[in-house]
This record gives sequence, structure tokens and C-alpha cells, in this order.
Amino acid sequence: MKVSKLLGETMKQAPADCSIESQKIMVRGGYMKHMHNGIYSLFTPTRYITKKIENIIREEMDAIDGQEVLFPVVMPASLWRESGRYESIGKEMARFKDRSNNDMVLGMTHEEAAVHLAKNTAKSYAQYPFMIYQIQTKFRDEPRARGGLIRVREFTMKDAYSFHTSQEDLEDYYEKALEAYNRIFRRCGVKNFVAVKSDSGMMGGSISHEFMLLTDIGEDTLAICPECGYKANMEAADVYVENNRPSSGEYKKVNTPGTTTIESLHEFLKTSEDSMIKAVVYQRNLDDSYVVVFIRADLEVNETKLRNYLQSEVHAAVITEESGIVAGFIGPVNFKGNATVVYDSSIKGLKDASCGANEVDYHLTGVDVDRDLGDIETVDVAKIQAGFVCPGCGKKTITISNGIEIGNIFQLGTKYTKSMEMTYIDKDGIEKNPIMGCYGIGVGRLCASICEESHDEYGPIWPMSIAPWQVEICNLRPDNEEVNEYANKLYEDLKKAKVEVLYDDRVIRPGAMFADADLFGVPVRVIVSPKNMEKGVVELVYRDKTFKGEIPLDDAFESIKEHVKKLLSMYEE
Amino acid sequence: MKVSKLLGETMKQAPADCSIESQKIMVRGGYMKHMHNGIYSLFTPTRYITKKIENIIREEMDAIDGQEVLFPVVMPASLWRESGRYESIGKEMARFKDRSNNDMVLGMTHEEAAVHLAKNTAKSYAQYPFMIYQIQTKFRDEPRARGGLIRVREFTMKDAYSFHTSQEDLEDYYEKALEAYNRIFRRCGVKNFVAVKSDSGMMGGSISHEFMLLTDIGEDTLAICPECGYKANMEAADVYVENNRPSSGEYKKVNTPGTTTIESLHEFLKTSEDSMIKAVVYQRNLDDSYVVVFIRADLEVNETKLRNYLQSEVHAAVITEESGIVAGFIGPVNFKGNATVVYDSSIKGLKDASCGANEVDYHLTGVDVDRDLGDIETVDVAKIQAGFVCPGCGKKTITISNGIEIGNIFQLGTKYTKSMEMTYIDKDGIEKNPIMGCYGIGVGRLCASICEESHDEYGPIWPMSIAPWQVEICNLRPDNEEVNEYANKLYEDLKKAKVEVLYDDRVIRPGAMFADADLFGVPVRVIVSPKNMEKGVVELVYRDKTFKGEIPLDDAFESIKEHVKKLLSMYEE
Repeated sequence: MKVSKLLGETMKQAPADCSIESQKIMVRGGYMKHMHNGIYSLFTPTRYITKKIENIIREEMDAIDGQEVLFPVVMPASLWRESGRYESIGKEMARFKDRSNNDMVLGMTHEEAAVHLAKNTAKSYAQYPFMIYQIQTKFRDEPRARGGLIRVREFTMKDAYSFHTSQEDLEDYYEKALEAYNRIFRRCGVKNFVAVKSDSGMMGGSISHEFMLLTDIGEDTLAICPECGYKANMEAADVYVENNRPSSGEYKKVNTPGTTTIESLHEFLKTSEDSMIKAVVYQRNLDDSYVVVFIRADLEVNETKLRNYLQSEVHAAVITEESGIVAGFIGPVNFKGNATVVYDSSIKGLKDASCGANEVDYHLTGVDVDRDLGDIETVDVAKIQAGFVCPGCGKKTITISNGIEIGNIFQLGTKYTKSMEMTYIDKDGIEKNPIMGCYGIGVGRLCASICEESHDEYGPIWPMSIAPWQVEICNLRPDNEEVNEYANKLYEDLKKAKVEVLYDDRVIRPGAMFADADLFGVPVRVIVSPKNMEKGVVELVYRDKTFKGEIPLDDAFESIKEHVKKLLSMYEE
Repeated sequence: MKVSKLLGETMKQAPADCSIESQKIMVRGGYMKHMHNGIYSLFTPTRYITKKIENIIREEMDAIDGQEVLFPVVMPASLWRESGRYESIGKEMARFKDRSNNDMVLGMTHEEAAVHLAKNTAKSYAQYPFMIYQIQTKFRDEPRARGGLIRVREFTMKDAYSFHTSQEDLEDYYEKALEAYNRIFRRCGVKNFVAVKSDSGMMGGSISHEFMLLTDIGEDTLAICPECGYKANMEAADVYVENNRPSSGEYKKVNTPGTTTIESLHEFLKTSEDSMIKAVVYQRNLDDSYVVVFIRADLEVNETKLRNYLQSEVHAAVITEESGIVAGFIGPVNFKGNATVVYDSSIKGLKDASCGANEVDYHLTGVDVDRDLGDIETVDVAKIQAGFVCPGCGKKTITISNGIEIGNIFQLGTKYTKSMEMTYIDKDGIEKNPIMGCYGIGVGRLCASICEESHDEYGPIWPMSIAPWQVEICNLRPDNEEVNEYANKLYEDLKKAKVEVLYDDRVIRPGAMFADADLFGVPVRVIVSPKNMEKGVVELVYRDKTFKGEIPLDDAFESIKEHVKKLLSMYEE
């Protein structure tokens, strides 16, 4: 490919609305063009990168017996009504009516389509397990598209669906898929990634993992234990706290005028936050009914855990008088408000504690939770924090990191096969619902994440395995006959040898050419110039600066091929 | 791939609603699954075929300097308002509102997106010409989805857009694209296809060609001259007729009671249809205004030509009294109706003709068009018929055939670059609009068309270049240790040698296995059985029956590779 004909413009400055480095680089470097909120067209370099990523994914999916299929982007609502998600998913799903007035949706995930395809064709246990996957466009009407290809509304995704006759078989396959994902990311050149336990969200199911690229700009927050290797999305990490205070006899009611916040109560009582119980009040979205969470005052509520526990969406409450909830003075002892009460595990065993007295300007002190609340059910709805006890090894070693989700895998169970009535006949002649797993990778997001991890101030440093081109020839003087002839021949020879070459044949200043080359991020750069020709060499430099050398003109062709081979081999497994 | 694990069911009978052979075969053979009107999921064999077709297309597009890009499926209506097509396209385009109440559309073609991407990045004439293409999902809300993948609502398409600084340059490139298309179809194994001149329809522009697979089940009708090779879609073929009748003096008004049709007038006057002028009346969709076409009575109006001439959609008329049009007795002499009058070229030079007298129960005879109508503008809006004069060689040799459109190429001109204000600075410093061409191939339709052309009563006969697998091993006795061991090893060896093998390892009757093998349509079949093992051979047969032989067990591996190589070479160019 000649740069003179390559469509796409490089800019000195990224537009002001670019929020992260990879976005700035990919907009500046002519990788993509913004069309609408969260919707981009991709220029050729990006398409070349995503094709390579797609092929690596294909190879690894095929290696774990995946069968590539293709589901439609546009699906009838009827299919989504079968699973119940036509109603349960909100505005994220784009909907329209076709010319015959049928309700249609745009696929944001394809569990329903996978069951539709597999249903009636896998009726015998002998056909299990199997996995089908596709690489296809999806549309999710994200409220907050941001960060270029990191969070868009339209995206290309590999989504895979496996079907099993037992939980054990699913778990075996899940392990294989997890390993395949590790290979995919390593082969794509992702360096700093981890698989973390995660929340299943709208997918349903139980166990799930997210693959996270660790980076400060990540939107996800992870709890990681450097001691034992425990890793979880903060949304999903279990919280363990200790309550060691001794009991102090009967609780007392104390006049605490105006102390409606934990801070003011702390000031007033001179007691530590880990001996106070706070109340956090929510309302269910569905009917505005109240939910009161009692939690140790030094902790925060993890709303994802709360939602999963309640099985309903909630929002911060507006407390009315009729509710019987005494805002600012809510406490678990003799609470009489009209609300669902959730006791966080952190208050279990707490003694000599302070909390609201459910009466304006009064608190209780000396509360012993086990004694004064009786046999309550507690549940973990707390947010993990740095220095907390690691659920893996039990040491107080938890660290908090940010990450970008670059892939996820879910154990779905029978949520979809049950609701959509997919069955098979088992060995024993009994009709059963297959157990499913699903496995996703966003191709464009992975591309942008690699750029985010692998760049310098001048542009991306693409790993050889996914680079848009393997080699860039910089012809510094196309107007010099000798230089031009050599560079042209080298370009043609390399092309014939199936080396992927970008050839900058423009008559521009060397500085501008190198600046653009940095933005193209091609791993191996070959510089042909009059000065080099005089010395009888070409310069060869790596984009990542780990190599710089002069190669005799006659050896250049072979040497370049060797360098490409060497760099490619770094990503082979 | 082992058949025992391959998802997809083969059936003895296709469902009753399958209208053509390729659809029957592809539904029966587990190639696709119907999800909704014109919407299918594709099983693995089809995905393997379409991937190969896509790669052949990519190679040929890259060979004519195409740059692969990716446009979004979902686009903002604003982009389509710029070109004017948001209004001019009807229900074929799916529309919805996103969560922020923006009007969005699903791409059914991507001229707007191509101009959006190229605009501002190709500002200098030196960057021209260039061509960008994508392979992407499209949705077109077809009123009459039919024939399986032949006419669907959602489909995968390769669409390419070229940009030029002169009409000559466009025409040069257009020729190259035409050649690339010929290579694509030949390499995919299409045998009986032609490029025909066509109507540009909603794409706008002037010259265009369709690539047609000739087959009786085709929805398109083609005019082909076996003498000179002229080929055109009937929609676009020029019509030439001769009028040789001598004049017969002044015209006369004749009482012709009740003769409101050409047939009855023919009976009454005993004159031939090619000496009669009929009137065909339409109304414009926009305002119901009348359009009267005068055409020689033995010809039909080609409504596509009429629409293009009028630049508006029309429908058959309901004639009211106020219109001043005397239904059944309309004629060109002294016509006083309130209508746009269109004179078809066929009446030019017509003498001694009969036509309506614009008065109930009266016709004129002896009309001389040139004499009695004066200096009228005539235009060709007639439908070509078998035996008509060939516009290429002038002989009366036109034949009519049916075809399936498998690709099209258009010279678009500046329709989109003007309306969307895409400009470049020319050599002379003047700002100009680039001239565009566009080039489409539907991948799924091509796959189905190949099946339509290349099948027998038992299933498809896939050309080696696009076959889902190259070789199928039929293990007739997986329960026989010797047979099984040999077949397993052959399968593993071939897989290692990168031969694409489908391995039927099921314990089923040979008859059922062969029936399924016919439905898989794999070019080379290898049969491993106890009988063959005893003879020390495997049987090797071609799906197209052009080869059948016995190969010694030890030679099978090498021999199979040679057969694959030979068959592949048939499609190399």
C-alpha cells in the first residue's frame, strides 16, 4: 500500500473531545472517523488490525472445537419475548417496526439466536457438548459512549455459545475457553491483563469472569491480592470484616440533636466509624417501595450486589413522612419503617455499636447486634476497599486497580434453554434442558485497548501479530532517481514475498514522514535516503525502539524478512 | 470437523414453502435456519462457503487497489438527508429512533457513508483515484423476500466506492472493476453468467451493468443477442422498430361503437396492431397528475424507462371525467386531456395508422404521425421482445432469458459528492466534485446462486474454490477397529496437512451417510469400508461424478492432496 493513495488523514492535534490516549491517537492517525454518537467508520489500517484480531480469535475458537456460524443483526422481537428479555432489557436495545408492522430488535447479544439455531438440531445427548460462535456487528444503545472504540454503540464482536449436558462438562469447557482467551490476548500482544471474577448482570447465570486490561483509564475497578493472586471485579468481590469490640451492657438512648450524618455523629459521640451502623435508603424502580440497608458506617454499599440480592433495580430514595422512616436517625433496633430491610454482613457480631434510634435527635449507643436484633439474616452487599481482607488468602492485602474489560465468559446455566424450551434426550431417556456457557470479545475495543497499552507520545506501537502492516518503507527522496529506484524495487520485492508493506512515497519533509510513520505504528521501519545510499545501507529501526541498525543494501530484502519473522514468533504459542 | 458434532440437521424433505431448488437444498442440508421473513441464521457449512467467497472478493478488490474499510450498519438519518435519500427511499429502509430521539437508519447501501469517510481527507487531485470497499451486513426491508438466500432482508454485501477526477478515469476504472468481477465469479465457480447493461434505479447515475447468472428461475429478464453478444436487462434495452406502411391520404373519423380495447378495434377495423397507436395512462404517485403514453399497439410500455424519463414514480391510472381524457378512445391527434403526453419512439414515421379520436365511440384511421402531429419529441419507453432488432448489430435476433443478479456496477457521477459537498482542488486550482463509481456483490446470494447452478437431485455440487470442506471421509464402519483406525489416522494426517476435511464418523447406514454426503456437496469423497480395506484400497469419488477410482491405502494421503490441488487449480487465474 502506498501512503500517497491511502485514504485517511493524520493530524497534528486530536479534536478536543477525545478523552483518552488511544482515542486521540486513533483519531489523529486516520484510523477511524466519527459519524455519530458512538458510531464510527473505520479506515483501512484499523480494518487490517481488526481482521488480524478476528483471525487469531477464529483460530483459537476453532482449536476448542468452535463452529463458526452467522446470526442476524436484525431479529424479531418474538424471539426476545420467549426469553423474557424483550421486556427486561431497557433502552440499550434498539427497536423498530418493519414494513409489515412486526416488532424487530437489533442484536446486542445473541443467546436467543444461538438457542434458536441449536434447538431441534441437537436432540440427543451424543451430540453434546458443542460450541457455536460468530464474528458479527452488534448495536447497543449505550447512554455514555466514550473513549473512541473503547465504548461505542455499534461494534464488532465475537460471541460464542456452548451447550452441555452437565454442570461438570460446562465447567471443563469453561476452563478451556478461559485458556483460549488467555492465548488470544497474548497472541494479540496484550501484556498486562488478568481474568477476574465478575458479576453476571443482564446475562443471568452464576459464575463469570471478565478479562481486564489493567490501566488507569479503565472504567472498571478491580480488587486484586498481590499475595495469593485473587482477582475480582469490585462489583463481585466478597467483603470480610472483623468486629472485635467487647460488649458494654444494655444499649442506651442518647440525645444527639442535629446529628443527621455519620460525620456529625462521629464528632458528637467521639466513637470510630467501624463501631457505628449507618442506614442507606433506596427505592425500587418498579414501585418506589423502600429498601433500607444497615451497614457498618466505614463501608459503602455495593449497589450491584444489592440489585442482585433484591433481583430488582433501585435508586437513591426520597424519604417521605408516610414511610415511617425517620431520615437521619434510622437504626436497626425497633425499626418500624415501611421498607425491606437488608442487613449487611459487616454488622454481624458488632458490639457496643452506635446507630439511629428511629426518633428525631436520638441515637442508641452500646448496641450488640446479635443480642439486640436477634436472629437476622445478613448478606454481603458491601464494597471492597484497598487493605481489606483478601477473600482468597485471608490477609489484609487487597489492592484496587482500574481495568478495561476486553472479554468475558459466563456460565449461563439453563436460563435460555428453559425459557425457550430447548431440550435433548439424555442417556437415561429423559428430556432435559442443555446447560449453556457464553463467551464474548469486542474486536474494536480490543484494538483500542492494545493501542491504549502500547503507545508512546508519538503514536501507537502495534504488536507485529496485529499490526496493519509489518514493514514501512520511508522513501525520503522520491525525487532522487537512485533512492527512488531502490525503494520502489524493495517495495515490489517485499510485496511479492508476501511481506505486508506500507510504502511512504510522498515528497514531503523527513520530519513529517517520520511523524506519520509513528502514527502508523508499523513495527519495522526501513529508511531509504541519499545519505544511506551513499553509505551503501538502509536504516532499519523498530517502532518500539528496541532495535536500530544499518543493513547493507543487498542484504536488506532478506534481513527485513528475518526481522518480521522474529517479531512474529514472539506472539506464536 | 466431525459430522457427529456438526450442528445442523439434514432432512429428507424440504419444507413446503421452499420455492426454488437451491433453497430446498440449503434448508434440507442444514445450511441455514429461517428466523423471520427474509432473515436467516447460517450454519457452519454456509459460513465456511461465504468466508471463501469473501476472501476471493477481497483478493480481487485489493488487486485493483481497493482499500478495505468498515462502515456502520446503523447510521444517523442526517447523513441520508444530505443526499436526499432519506425522503426518496421508501419503506425498504428500516428506521428507528435512538435513546436520545435521533432518527437512525439501517444501511441498505453505503454511498453516503463512503462520501462521509472520504470527504475532507482527499482534498487534492493527487490523491485520486482511489477505491474503498467493505464486506458488511445490510438490511433492506424487501416487500417480497423469497428463494432462501436469493432475496432476503438481511444480507452480507461487498460494496465498493471509487472516486475520480474525470469521467475518463472513472470509465478506465469501471472497466477494471468489470474485469475484476468476471474474475471473482469465475474463481467462485459460476459458469453461466453475463454482464448486462442495466437501469441505475435508486442509485442514480448513468451507465451501469448487472452481472447475471442465467437461469430459468431468475427474477430478472434479459435481452441477449446471440449474433453480436449484446446483452441488457430488459429494463434498460433500447427498442428499435421499423414503420414501413405508405401514407393513405387524409385521416378519417370512423364510428367504432364499443371498441374500447385494442383487441376489439383490431377485430372491428381488420388492421394489424403495428399500424395502431394505443394510449397507456398513468398517474404520478406524488400528485396523481396524468401521464399518457402513445405507443405502437403491438408494444408494451417499459415502466422503468418511463419512470427514468419522467423522474418520478407512476402507477396505473384511474381516469376521471374532469381529466378531459376519453377512456377507451384516446388518440394523439387533437388530444386535449389534462396530462403530460409521452410519445414513444415506435410511432415515429408511422403512416396510415389508427388511433382513438378523443370522442366516445370514434377512432381515426389513416393518421400520418409526422404529418398530423407535427414536430413532436419522441422517447424510447418500450419493452424489448424476442425477435426484436438488436441494438448492437441491427439484426432481428434478440432472445429473452431469465437471470439472477449476482453483482452490479454503477457509474454514479457526482450525485452524492455534489449533494454532500465533497470537493477536491484540481490541478488548475479549481474546487470540483469527485466523480464516483460503485460496485456491489451480495455474498449470500452468490452462494445460493452457485448452488442453484451447480446441483443435482441429491444436493449441491460445490466448486472446490468455495466448498465448505475440500474432502469428506466416509467411515462406513466406525465400529470396526481396523476401518476406524485407518479412517481416524487419515483424518488427522489430512488435518495436519491443512486439508479441509469433513469426517463422517457416525454409526449409521451407508445409504444415509452417502445421502448426507450428497447434501454436504464436498468435492472429493473418500470411502473407508471393510470391503475396501480387504482390497487394500479406499474409494475416491468426485461429487460431480467426473472421477471415481480406487487408491491403495498407503497412497491415499498423497493422492487426496493431489486431487484437491488439481481441482483447486481449475479456479485459479
